[in-house]
Amino acid sequence: MIQFITLIGSGNVAHNLGLAFREAGLEVLEVVSKNIANAEILAQKLNAKPNNDLSKINQESDLYVVASSDNSIAKIASQLNVRDKLLVHTSGSIDIAELNIASIRVGSFYPLQTFTKSHRTDFQKIPICIESNDPQATRELEQLGKKISNRIIHMSSIQRQKLHLAAVFVSNFANYMQVIGQDLCEEQGIEFNLLKPLIKEVFDKNQLKSARENQTGPAMRKDSFVMEKHLQLLKNDPSLQELYNNISALIQGDFS
Amino acid sequence: MIQFITLIGSGNVAHNLGLAFREAGLEVLEVVSKNIANAEILAQKLNAKPNNDLSKINQESDLYVVASSDNSIAKIASQLNVRDKLLVHTSGSIDIAELNIASIRVGSFYPLQTFTKSHRTDFQKIPICIESNDPQATRELEQLGKKISNRIIHMSSIQRQKLHLAAVFVSNFANYMQVIGQDLCEEQGIEFNLLKPLIKEVFDKNQLKSARENQTGPAMRKDSFVMEKHLQLLKNDPSLQELYNNISALIQGDFS
Repeated sequence: MIQFITLIGSGNVAHNLGLAFREAGLEVLEVVSKNIANAEILAQKLNAKPNNDLSKINQESDLYVVASSDNSIAKIASQLNVRDKLLVHTSGSIDIAELNIASIRVGSFYPLQTFTKSHRTDFQKIPICIESNDPQATRELEQLGKKISNRIIHMSSIQRQKLHLAAVFVSNFANYMQVIGQDLCEEQGIEFNLLKPLIKEVFDKNQLKSARENQTGPAMRKDSFVMEKHLQLLKNDPSLQELYNNISALIQGDFS
Repeated sequence: MIQFITLIGSGNVAHNLGLAFREAGLEVLEVVSKNIANAEILAQKLNAKPNNDLSKINQESDLYVVASSDNSIAKIASQLNVRDKLLVHTSGSIDIAELNIASIRVGSFYPLQTFTKSHRTDFQKIPICIESNDPQATRELEQLGKKISNRIIHMSSIQRQKLHLAAVFVSNFANYMQVIGQDLCEEQGIEFNLLKPLIKEVFDKNQLKSARENQTGPAMRKDSFVMEKHLQLLKNDPSLQELYNNISALIQGDFS
């Protein structure tokens, strides 16, 4: 069973995960970060030891969690050696095999959510996707996950990667559609708040039926008359025109 | 004051608006639709007269509302003559001047929402954008609007058109991001429901801060490592790759 944990990383995910572990009665022994000041801030909150030297990492933990940016995971793994201790990352996009240079027992512990340090996340409803190359480790990760979340899902690396990509579309890209809407309103001195009931209606409808069933709009009904007017309104912004055409063509192709 | 109304159209907007007018104590005298069967269905619900001949439209109403598809408004106006009676459309994208062929007093009465016949819409919170070429008519439209909604906004045609365009981005296009996410999940046998807490988090955060302040993701943090992985995952779908690049480039340009 996992009781003692080492966190490698001190960013948003490490922060939220560390606090959730601690509240679930687990012990974070050490927080490792290149930047010792950041390690200290989080270590203090978790009553853990700060460390900025991967070569001197403790060997007493049951689990080592690499909760750092995706593009630093390979480098961290190359500097790390925890032998046969369980080593996981929290990344949506990295294959667990990339950790094998540092341990023979590897896996992922990927909480599907966007994190900020300032806003504490309630883990109970956050799906945690787990994977391991070792059946016993998988069970341990599942037990660990259940201590902080009601939703533990077993997932292969390719599934997790596609899920992460899907998350970019439904959260980051969908959010950016609102940024564009905000800009278009502000440019005309219109309060963006006017669009809030519409945004809420889309959100509410998608709780009842699928987004596919709820798709509406000029592209969906192949209303080239309105689409032409919209492109005219965007004539001073060719990149937005391109985006408008691009999404409209996808919708039309999809629903034809 | 407006008491007697004629609805031209029998689709989602005419349907929802007609019922809202009736519940507010207004009288819909006539429902005009090319398709007499559709006119009859709505006319019956509103205790109104059905009609499929614009040339025989009644001349007793205080207000004529063209609630039909945007690309049919010009044609309807060309077949209609209500002299100096107030004539409005419910379109987000059409200039009110396009109605002038049918009356000298024209305007718009544009409810900013997506409508379906099956799902009754609570008008109270829906912004209604009004405009008219006549100050007295503007006041009448404002009084009328207040009977069904708490949110009446005066808006020029160009403002309304930009707002309508913004609405396409924040509702139709944002919804389509979820359709894409759904497809990516289903392709891998992953439940789309896993993404619901993330979608809710984005929705909730945007109630507190602006979408611009809440933008996150690989493109936002210029994480080319993850973006490359995502493009690889989309290698069998060039049009989605193009969309991914397109939105990412806009985000990067926007936040640089």
